[in-house]
Amino acid sequence: MRNVTVDNITEVFSAYFGDEADPRSKEVLSSLAKHMHAFVKDVNLTHDEWRTGLKALEWAGQLTCPERNEFVLLSDVMGLSSLVDMVNSKPGVTSSSVLGPFHVSNAPPLEIGGDMRADFGGEVVLVEGIVRDAQGEPIPGAVVDIWQTAPNGLYSSQDPKQDTYSFHGLMTTDKQGRYAFTTIRPVSYVVPDDGPAGEILKAAGRHPWRPSHLHFIVEAPGYQSLTTEVFAADDPYLDQDTVFGVREDLVMHYVTQAAGTFPEGFVLSGKVDGEYSRVDFDFKLAAI
Amino acid sequence: MRNVTVDNITEVFSAYFGDEADPRSKEVLSSLAKHMHAFVKDVNLTHDEWRTGLKALEWAGQLTCPERNEFVLLSDVMGLSSLVDMVNSKPGVTSSSVLGPFHVSNAPPLEIGGDMRADFGGEVVLVEGIVRDAQGEPIPGAVVDIWQTAPNGLYSSQDPKQDTYSFHGLMTTDKQGRYAFTTIRPVSYVVPDDGPAGEILKAAGRHPWRPSHLHFIVEAPGYQSLTTEVFAADDPYLDQDTVFGVREDLVMHYVTQAAGTFPEGFVLSGKVDGEYSRVDFDFKLAAI
Repeated sequence: MRNVTVDNITEVFSAYFGDEADPRSKEVLSSLAKHMHAFVKDVNLTHDEWRTGLKALEWAGQLTCPERNEFVLLSDVMGLSSLVDMVNSKPGVTSSSVLGPFHVSNAPPLEIGGDMRADFGGEVVLVEGIVRDAQGEPIPGAVVDIWQTAPNGLYSSQDPKQDTYSFHGLMTTDKQGRYAFTTIRPVSYVVPDDGPAGEILKAAGRHPWRPSHLHFIVEAPGYQSLTTEVFAADDPYLDQDTVFGVREDLVMHYVTQAAGTFPEGFVLSGKVDGEYSRVDFDFKLAAI
Repeated sequence: MRNVTVDNITEVFSAYFGDEADPRSKEVLSSLAKHMHAFVKDVNLTHDEWRTGLKALEWAGQLTCPERNEFVLLSDVMGLSSLVDMVNSKPGVTSSSVLGPFHVSNAPPLEIGGDMRADFGGEVVLVEGIVRDAQGEPIPGAVVDIWQTAPNGLYSSQDPKQDTYSFHGLMTTDKQGRYAFTTIRPVSYVVPDDGPAGEILKAAGRHPWRPSHLHFIVEAPGYQSLTTEVFAADDPYLDQDTVFGVREDLVMHYVTQAAGTFPEGFVLSGKVDGEYSRVDFDFKLAAI
């Protein structure tokens, strides 16, 4: 090691582990060094660029607080969060997608057929589906944690005018594995772009928009927890999600329903006379 | 982009640049994404490991202040700082090495033959050499900024007992391109290991020691500024520098000199009767 060179530094790094290093730490750190070294060499990173990167991390540190995690956002806009989701996904089941920073734990129970709109107006959307296993069999008693933006584009945790659990609910599937609720369409929104993640977007000529989506965490005993998002097929940002969250199997359709057809079994039954729209989306969970 | 997959995400990232993105930003960000994506895929990074990485960055943000930059230290222990130094080095001249966090700007002038020991005792070391161009011709009037640890292992900026400019000096080479001063041997020391960089060292089974070294920044009109360190050949940590700073051409020798041989032309001339040691080290600067 007394002669570290551009050509041998990665090898020197990988050779420089003590016997007590656990194999996984060694694997992860060696690979991180290998790929970061390759990056520096590929672009011949200048000292100014290196300092810019370090300043960006310092700035992220200054912005990060319980309400905002700029490091997560940096991971998101670089596609890392989505990639970690994907490499940990199982084939043949519903894709996972980013958790995001706006989930509130311990949401109140929402009965099947319940309504999430609170005091917000707007066209009613009926969302329903079945939670299934990889073979398509329904899973009764699965817990479906649902959250979304209000129509003003804000999650409750961003909006002092909303209650903590506004547009959040925790539903348990029935004997047929079914969940169902009414809500208002979530809207497209921008990720915070006044920090280093925003600077990356500006440097890349990218916008900070995400296509509108419903968030879900679906859990059932014996199955892997699924954290995902479901996106509207007609959203203008579907092909430009700034955090790379969209997967083909996570695209849903809002289908307009004729007036007078709103079904029984919902809190809003008998109260929706006009047109409404409907989303049908099933989840498939991987067994543990 | 509505179907991001493990296989296409890097391509999707690289295709997702606006027309206004400048070519260098595009090159650097695409390459960073490519290599970070390859890292995640190579090790199948788990969500827990991803969260551990983000927590490490958050922690680095909390520790970083004017006196300590944990992000620089993370870059150092991963070998990135050294690699950035090396890819920006020119062949045929003295290698650069890490600046480190302990340099104090605007050190007071130190005359040729001056003494840096202040009130510290210990064996006298005479350091001298010539600043040269790539062809070996001396460069008169080059400014040599020198700093090092005190014998207690601390730089002045770490040690409330030392003056700001203790073991710091700014020397201008004479007509023969020569610099010369007396000092005490700097000592091996540990980088701060109570933060995430320390956790990386622990996970790797590595220690936080750096071999002892003298720091130099050498500047002259018409030449590239050289930031470097010069290491003692007999230091026990020479082959284990925790920040990968050692290069073969930066290794120096302390050569013990017989009593009664201390030369003229030094502040200490006539005051050193016993043995002392001597270091001869020339610098070669690249033309701009």
